[in-house]
Amino acid sequence: MSDKIVVGVDIGGTTIKVGLCSAEGELLRTYEGPTEVDKGSVQVCQNIADYARLIVEESDFEWEQVEGVGVGIAGFLDIPNGIVKFSPNLHFKDVHLKDFLEEKLQKKVLVNNDANVAALGEAWAGAGRGVMHCVCYTLGTGVGGGIIIGGKIVEGYAGMAGELGHMSVVPDLEAIQCGCGKMGCLESVSSATGIIRMAKDAVERGDRTSLSFVEQIMAKDVFDAAKAGDEVAARIVTRAAFYLGKSMATVAVVLNPQRFIIGGGVSRAGEFLFEQIREVFHKFTPENTQEGVEIVPAILGNNAGVVGAAGLIIRA
Amino acid sequence: MSDKIVVGVDIGGTTIKVGLCSAEGELLRTYEGPTEVDKGSVQVCQNIADYARLIVEESDFEWEQVEGVGVGIAGFLDIPNGIVKFSPNLHFKDVHLKDFLEEKLQKKVLVNNDANVAALGEAWAGAGRGVMHCVCYTLGTGVGGGIIIGGKIVEGYAGMAGELGHMSVVPDLEAIQCGCGKMGCLESVSSATGIIRMAKDAVERGDRTSLSFVEQIMAKDVFDAAKAGDEVAARIVTRAAFYLGKSMATVAVVLNPQRFIIGGGVSRAGEFLFEQIREVFHKFTPENTQEGVEIVPAILGNNAGVVGAAGLIIRA
Repeated sequence: MSDKIVVGVDIGGTTIKVGLCSAEGELLRTYEGPTEVDKGSVQVCQNIADYARLIVEESDFEWEQVEGVGVGIAGFLDIPNGIVKFSPNLHFKDVHLKDFLEEKLQKKVLVNNDANVAALGEAWAGAGRGVMHCVCYTLGTGVGGGIIIGGKIVEGYAGMAGELGHMSVVPDLEAIQCGCGKMGCLESVSSATGIIRMAKDAVERGDRTSLSFVEQIMAKDVFDAAKAGDEVAARIVTRAAFYLGKSMATVAVVLNPQRFIIGGGVSRAGEFLFEQIREVFHKFTPENTQEGVEIVPAILGNNAGVVGAAGLIIRA
Repeated sequence: MSDKIVVGVDIGGTTIKVGLCSAEGELLRTYEGPTEVDKGSVQVCQNIADYARLIVEESDFEWEQVEGVGVGIAGFLDIPNGIVKFSPNLHFKDVHLKDFLEEKLQKKVLVNNDANVAALGEAWAGAGRGVMHCVCYTLGTGVGGGIIIGGKIVEGYAGMAGELGHMSVVPDLEAIQCGCGKMGCLESVSSATGIIRMAKDAVERGDRTSLSFVEQIMAKDVFDAAKAGDEVAARIVTRAAFYLGKSMATVAVVLNPQRFIIGGGVSRAGEFLFEQIREVFHKFTPENTQEGVEIVPAILGNNAGVVGAAGLIIRA
């Protein structure tokens, strides 16, 4: 085969996932190997290089067809230089990842943070395919995000763009302090953690809810209870959806994206959640800014990371 | 002289202002002529072409040195095609401005909306010179804005990006309806109109304030009274500053710009206003997102329009 291909790498604390993509964003195959954090940063970097070579060797493609290697990683980065300044879960400190990999692989290497990379994956080859302006939310333990304008990641001045979970949306009187130190962050109400906290508060307060009988409340329990007609659970979901929709109304007037893409564990609640988010979005967004704008679920799941990392090369 | 130059055009309802800029953003000369809206759209377009030729003729440059002509205009635009779909104050409807001017002038012509263009002017050659990521607020009758990422205007999917005045920031209990139809918009509290409204409300309510003795309250009166120690006026200024600072905290986590630039009549209140905005911004923005971020006044004043229009060509 003579087509160009790209390799995407998603570095997790225990597993390094590698994906092979066509230049059009089709995920052709994946490979996973151990990260081996305990063996130190050089070994981790060497593993990345080895797995990247391996996935191409095992395919029908030749190494010469590889256009470049993109890497997504959690931590504080110097993006232009591909330096991992600090990554707690990998025990990386000032690791020159781009230089290391470019020397080992003799290919163009681009490094970016995992949230941006996952957003690019969805925007390029997932729920945002063909759409140039996308804003992606990831609703998990926290609320992450990524902004894609003109098909490219918006990194911001210090690489801190897309921190959607820290939009201050909850009014002072109802606000609690977020892990970031500030009050009223979206993450405090619309993450799994936030939803679970509100549920526990309700149970402790003595609210009449079926959640009282759940031993270890998970976000899914709250959604299931709400869908089954539990009013207390429904109120919690409505609150999480309200601030998500309101934050999107704000992003809409600032950036006027065409599509909002929502992924992460919490998004699995499905249309039950999405309908409420859309309703709030429509309520708070001026008519001409919401025209043609869609709020849709992510579709790549756990592959968004490797696909987006590969996309770094194509959308550079 | 052999340097390249660019022409910027700022079309107002009564006057068309034209500016000649160096490729580095230095404003070399300006010219103003009547818009002549009453003579119809063809005459207005012809005037633009004439004034653009004239300003170059009157300079030491030759027409051959002109790199292109940028145009800023208020209204609903098809930006890529340079079509003015609707401009109420010019009585334009589906005017192919870019095509018309490119034929008459035989130069590359780019058209964009006036708020975006003014923002680009400040970002390129004003208070944002040398800074690639800027967010500009214009505090006048309304609150306008423009977003510059990587040195370029963010237009959004339907050209509606940068509508900062319609960020929904005021909590429901205190919110009033905005001209856009939505509740709680920044414009309702932080524009001159919003400040005047709050002052009139205070006077009508019987609050003890020196503003009771002002016949026709202007935003400047409110600032002057606040500076002189009037507590009611001070409270109004604090409220306007609070929501500005809070909206900037939100924009900061979404886009992580390096600099916020504030222009327009209300910004003339100076450090008295800016200090309060910065305080709120610091309160609501996570540490790592506010590091190195500045909030500064615009410096180009009424020239931002022509400079930014010229900048369209350079930053295309």
